[in-house]
Amino acid sequence: MTIAAKAYAAHASDKPLAPYSFTRRSPGPGDVVIDIHYCGVCHSDLHIARNDLGRTRYPLVPGHEITGVVRAVGDSVSRFRPGDRVGVGCMVDSCRHCSECDAGLEQYCEAMVQTYGSPDAHAEQSGEAITQGGYSSVITVDQDFVLGIPDSLPLDAAAPLLCAGITTWSPLVEWGVGKGDKVAVIGLGGLGHMAVKLAAALGAEVTVISTSDRKKADALAMGASDFLISREREAMARAQGRFDLIINTVSAPTELGAHVNLLARDGTMVMLGLTTEAMPVMALPLLFRRRRIAGSLIGGISETQAMLDFCGQHDIVCDIETITPDQINDAYARMERSDVRYRFVIDMKALAA
Amino acid sequence: MTIAAKAYAAHASDKPLAPYSFTRRSPGPGDVVIDIHYCGVCHSDLHIARNDLGRTRYPLVPGHEITGVVRAVGDSVSRFRPGDRVGVGCMVDSCRHCSECDAGLEQYCEAMVQTYGSPDAHAEQSGEAITQGGYSSVITVDQDFVLGIPDSLPLDAAAPLLCAGITTWSPLVEWGVGKGDKVAVIGLGGLGHMAVKLAAALGAEVTVISTSDRKKADALAMGASDFLISREREAMARAQGRFDLIINTVSAPTELGAHVNLLARDGTMVMLGLTTEAMPVMALPLLFRRRRIAGSLIGGISETQAMLDFCGQHDIVCDIETITPDQINDAYARMERSDVRYRFVIDMKALAA
Repeated sequence: MTIAAKAYAAHASDKPLAPYSFTRRSPGPGDVVIDIHYCGVCHSDLHIARNDLGRTRYPLVPGHEITGVVRAVGDSVSRFRPGDRVGVGCMVDSCRHCSECDAGLEQYCEAMVQTYGSPDAHAEQSGEAITQGGYSSVITVDQDFVLGIPDSLPLDAAAPLLCAGITTWSPLVEWGVGKGDKVAVIGLGGLGHMAVKLAAALGAEVTVISTSDRKKADALAMGASDFLISREREAMARAQGRFDLIINTVSAPTELGAHVNLLARDGTMVMLGLTTEAMPVMALPLLFRRRRIAGSLIGGISETQAMLDFCGQHDIVCDIETITPDQINDAYARMERSDVRYRFVIDMKALAA
Repeated sequence: MTIAAKAYAAHASDKPLAPYSFTRRSPGPGDVVIDIHYCGVCHSDLHIARNDLGRTRYPLVPGHEITGVVRAVGDSVSRFRPGDRVGVGCMVDSCRHCSECDAGLEQYCEAMVQTYGSPDAHAEQSGEAITQGGYSSVITVDQDFVLGIPDSLPLDAAAPLLCAGITTWSPLVEWGVGKGDKVAVIGLGGLGHMAVKLAAALGAEVTVISTSDRKKADALAMGASDFLISREREAMARAQGRFDLIINTVSAPTELGAHVNLLARDGTMVMLGLTTEAMPVMALPLLFRRRRIAGSLIGGISETQAMLDFCGQHDIVCDIETITPDQINDAYARMERSDVRYRFVIDMKALAA
């Protein structure tokens, strides 16, 4: 017995996504079957669909910002029951016993299973060689990788919290951002706009750094108190040494140097973009103020739940534009031009009909 | 009244260092006059003498790894008396009231005065427009920037502790190195050999990474438990993810990527070299294990004293080759070929005669 799923899949790196029918595994004892209501559209989806990292297997159903409602649960599932509002992010399994899993940092587990594109250990039941993501009508996931969505959050605008939210939350917490800290966010896109809302809610003074002032009003409305235009040399020079933490959501490597100089002593620039180009980094600006450049990758399951709970308490959701599944290729094209404020979310309920 | 000083100075970027006579200020109320016995030869001396950073004023007396004996003290000096064994490092003053000074991190104070090459606030008394360093017979320094040398340490082999020692000590302490931590040291030169000794004494398991096995026996004798040859791809691949902290004393930017991969999750590579070339850094290895690249610059006065006291307790000194002042140009030439184990120290006593 398997579960019929409808989806949109990439069938080749150079072809548009197209409808795809496949099956999900029926629930094992610890599994949760989720009717997917919404799935956010992450820039990574586009990278992987187009095989930018060279490891994509087709057909591939992207999507790792999933919200929906529990349809059924396995016999040993205690944390969820049918009707619960739940989410699934970038991971659906890990080894459960390495030091990373023990630390609640499953995203760094070497056996971590991505929501789409990883070899599927349940391939015999699902019929799919790889895990398939959230651009689909239904998904079966181990309960340990299912998140609860707070009642106060709508399922559509909450969906991107599962990747854009946790990706920006994790470094804010890791680097101890709190009241009065000076945080800059480079780039006001899907990740950036979440970084602004979360950092502001944590009490930080938030500055958005962008290439133009097009998004200034949005940034201030989201909680930023200042806005810097990276091409204005004088303003950038005046901001030297100002920030304790810079969340860099931009992948373009060229501007890195100028931005490192904005860090205070012991300040950290956290890189979040999946850039495959080398970034030119100068050593002297790091030395002279003991600055740091760090990476960060999504977040663990327990911190994802903590982020969702925090968003529930502070009424934080994403700014979204909802599309139907058949609009996904247009959405990709617009996303490539940064023409979205600030995240596309696909209404997947239409597919289930 | 001034104090006559003999020295070796750089008179132009393309000329060898040559004898130079000048004057030191007579001691103000808080000053200490030090007969210099030894001065270590740091790679920075060479960079500045040759104007590699483009800001050198001539004549310039290099040298910031100074040990000697107190000749005289000003009226309000309480911490030192004539005959005391003392040292002076890379700084001789700072503003004393900024947040960096308050934190004991005078090296990051914007008004920090370097031991040589900074504008001299006492120019009227000294007769020199810039501060002049330790390749000289005598120096006058504010007591707050004078360090005590523990009785158990010889003044010659202790001299390089004032720069090479504190430069490697500070990041080891800042990043919390302790018992059982896995530390790698890239490059076994003046800085590297101190990093090995200090990290081992702090209880870390130390690995030296070098381009050949020429210095393997030395590394093990200094306290390293392992030795990696960076050109051996298989050994480097096996070491991926192994180290909590990497102290990178090498300025060559090309190898950075391969070395970042050696870091464990949350591991940090600390850059110490004054490189003016951009280093190509890949974002993905930083993201996938939440790794960090950081800079570090010497250390504050109080932590320099703590380092000296630690060295006194653990009998840690530098491995040195002692030269006379007239051998400095040969020493520079040898240093450029890395032909020194592991630091040149100039016996300055001959100059005073």
